[in-house]
Amino acid sequence: MQDRTYTADAEPGDDATVAGWVHEIRDLGGIAFLILRDTTGKIQIKFEKDEMDDDLVEAGLDVSRESVVTVSGAVEEEPRAPTGVEITPESFEVVAPADPELPLDPSGKVDADLSTRLDNRTLDLRKDEVQAIFEIRSEILRAAREAFREFHCTEITTPKIVATGTEGGTELFPITYFGEEAFMNQSPQLFKQLIAGSNVERVFEIGPIFRAEEHNTPRHLNEATSIDFEGAFCDEGDAMDVAEGVVRAAYEAVAENCEDELEALGLEDSFEVPEDEFPRISYEEAIERINATGELDEQLVWGDDLPTEGEKALGDDVGGHYFITDWPSEIKPFYIQDHGDDEELSTGFDLMHPRMELVSGGQREHRYEQLIEGFEQQGLDPEQFDYYTKMFKYGMPPHAGFGLGGERLIMTILGLENIREAVLFPRDRQRLSP
Amino acid sequence: MQDRTYTADAEPGDDATVAGWVHEIRDLGGIAFLILRDTTGKIQIKFEKDEMDDDLVEAGLDVSRESVVTVSGAVEEEPRAPTGVEITPESFEVVAPADPELPLDPSGKVDADLSTRLDNRTLDLRKDEVQAIFEIRSEILRAAREAFREFHCTEITTPKIVATGTEGGTELFPITYFGEEAFMNQSPQLFKQLIAGSNVERVFEIGPIFRAEEHNTPRHLNEATSIDFEGAFCDEGDAMDVAEGVVRAAYEAVAENCEDELEALGLEDSFEVPEDEFPRISYEEAIERINATGELDEQLVWGDDLPTEGEKALGDDVGGHYFITDWPSEIKPFYIQDHGDDEELSTGFDLMHPRMELVSGGQREHRYEQLIEGFEQQGLDPEQFDYYTKMFKYGMPPHAGFGLGGERLIMTILGLENIREAVLFPRDRQRLSP
Repeated sequence: MQDRTYTADAEPGDDATVAGWVHEIRDLGGIAFLILRDTTGKIQIKFEKDEMDDDLVEAGLDVSRESVVTVSGAVEEEPRAPTGVEITPESFEVVAPADPELPLDPSGKVDADLSTRLDNRTLDLRKDEVQAIFEIRSEILRAAREAFREFHCTEITTPKIVATGTEGGTELFPITYFGEEAFMNQSPQLFKQLIAGSNVERVFEIGPIFRAEEHNTPRHLNEATSIDFEGAFCDEGDAMDVAEGVVRAAYEAVAENCEDELEALGLEDSFEVPEDEFPRISYEEAIERINATGELDEQLVWGDDLPTEGEKALGDDVGGHYFITDWPSEIKPFYIQDHGDDEELSTGFDLMHPRMELVSGGQREHRYEQLIEGFEQQGLDPEQFDYYTKMFKYGMPPHAGFGLGGERLIMTILGLENIREAVLFPRDRQRLSP
Repeated sequence: MQDRTYTADAEPGDDATVAGWVHEIRDLGGIAFLILRDTTGKIQIKFEKDEMDDDLVEAGLDVSRESVVTVSGAVEEEPRAPTGVEITPESFEVVAPADPELPLDPSGKVDADLSTRLDNRTLDLRKDEVQAIFEIRSEILRAAREAFREFHCTEITTPKIVATGTEGGTELFPITYFGEEAFMNQSPQLFKQLIAGSNVERVFEIGPIFRAEEHNTPRHLNEATSIDFEGAFCDEGDAMDVAEGVVRAAYEAVAENCEDELEALGLEDSFEVPEDEFPRISYEEAIERINATGELDEQLVWGDDLPTEGEKALGDDVGGHYFITDWPSEIKPFYIQDHGDDEELSTGFDLMHPRMELVSGGQREHRYEQLIEGFEQQGLDPEQFDYYTKMFKYGMPPHAGFGLGGERLIMTILGLENIREAVLFPRDRQRLSP
């Protein structure tokens, strides 16, 4: 492939070949401008009709928007051009013409609903503000992994095809696996625990999870990205430290490395890295504070799960990220350990953004007998989970961990309205393609 | 959780609390040693029976191997100890006793077959040499991502639940998706192309792929990790540059950052980063060279796919990584572009390790009409792929890319015999759990 200059790198005095999409053509009569767009930005191509070869002018001005072109010529300073430079073309080639009837307008002048955008993601991603979301997503994933490595974690890959779900048979997508019944995994929970019980000790995984839940809301996906941690010789306090560190690292990385993207999203002034330590509020205090807001029709009592409006009221009250700790054991899954000898109180915690829950975690039950009991209490047959439970007989250390919703993290960092905006090709109740 | 010192950080003069597994107990009569193991290594705990509290001695020496214990005491220099230091315990606590009947011996004194190892992965991973594989795997994934970022790539996540497979209905695991038929994706191919056609331009993904192929060999998995690249305005030569860069970066990272792990695997002297540029050998030259080795019963002719023995013969002949380029179009999938106007010759390439194929890639067909023809020639209904093909009408740039088998990369870097050794919980024809 011929040498190509990114538009952002074109300097006055260069002879450059740029390649990209036709963003816009402005024909002013004797002079016309074509704005060419590539991954780094846009550049102005100048056509002076009387001074240039007719074929060249015709090729440049007859091309349809969103066609792919390559242009070679001298880069010159031009203060009136959007980027302060322009190219006077010596050659102009249409590499891939675009159908003039675009199903979606990447210049953003015509609004499109989310469904049309997702059906035409290639065109949608040609908008600066949409590209920005996915550049930031990439940076958040990078920063999260780097933070985990600073916490001495090893990256693991756990299987997505499994014989049993983490929490039993509900909300699982069934697969036919060489004639056997299998499922797509809803969480790496059991597998990451099996690794934390080995010399590897501290692990993280960023990978897909699959949930057949019927929810169709702006906060739920049926295929999502889970950011998981599990650490041997950790308690729930350690796990909260890691969760807070990873979330904070994501914000810091976006602030440091995504200036242009924040600007494309109009967030350059409002974006803030959370400054204060995330407060750790007990479940008991949480329900008291929610009740005190008077936002709920009925007062919450100990043992109630927190309704969405309750989370919202508390989020407004706290005004930033916060943990809810010391949940009633009943509300938390069987693999979460109780607090010491108090069977009512669990070590489970949630990390909340004012808008929604981001993280769920806790110290795990590492004692074989208690684990088996937990399965039974949950109505699950422990024998079906023998591949998991048997390893708890051979020196399973105390351990703790969490799962962080990747798309929820991106959504809350960027203030997106719908979680589908944080996924290239979302999967929900209605959407299976593209 | 109480403060804990990693065994590798315990220095003479410290008062340390270490936590880990009982690796071994050596009772020499008046004196006994317990070797405690954690994620960073091993440390000797000294029990002088006459000089210590009887309960402490009893607790320390009665504990079964692989139990989890915490030990506090003074760290002292001891040249005869394996790491040059030892701890004289002041307190000793059994945190999680292990059943003395272990299904697998993590000290490695008793060999176990792969199936037993995989059934008991937690215990298996307590062996230094097994832990080393997965610490290296983690480092290889990190290095690959870093290399992609240096090639200006954005990390993407594509869906694993899809309506149609990349290459039609063969080798797909069917899912029931809210009553609809769907599949687990066998490759991010079509999705990464859809993103390369947008402003994002250059993308990579490291994620799971699922193939229902019946092969049950030491080189095949039904769930594997694919390392994918796709770049707009790239040709097959650029894609080969990226593939070579990523593979080389993986070797370099292992050489630089995994000294201890290479030693645990006995590779400290033999491990080498490939020095020379990977030669690019045309398919035509490849069959000539294979024929010249005389290793095959029958001579290959133009149009034949390369049999495994042929790859082996050529690998021995070349002696290192190499590319095979300019394949017959017939052998390569429909989305690979032909070479200019020669319909017989494709831009497809493979990157070979002397032991096996690592990468398959090429320049993609970006022209709408030719793409539709390609589907038809492959016996696929292009309408089923409308979500993909329609984006080729709106300015799809020339692009190229590849898929690199993650486990094959790890396997060849470390010289593993079986690809299952490179996966924590492999999935094959017989194995669905753990």
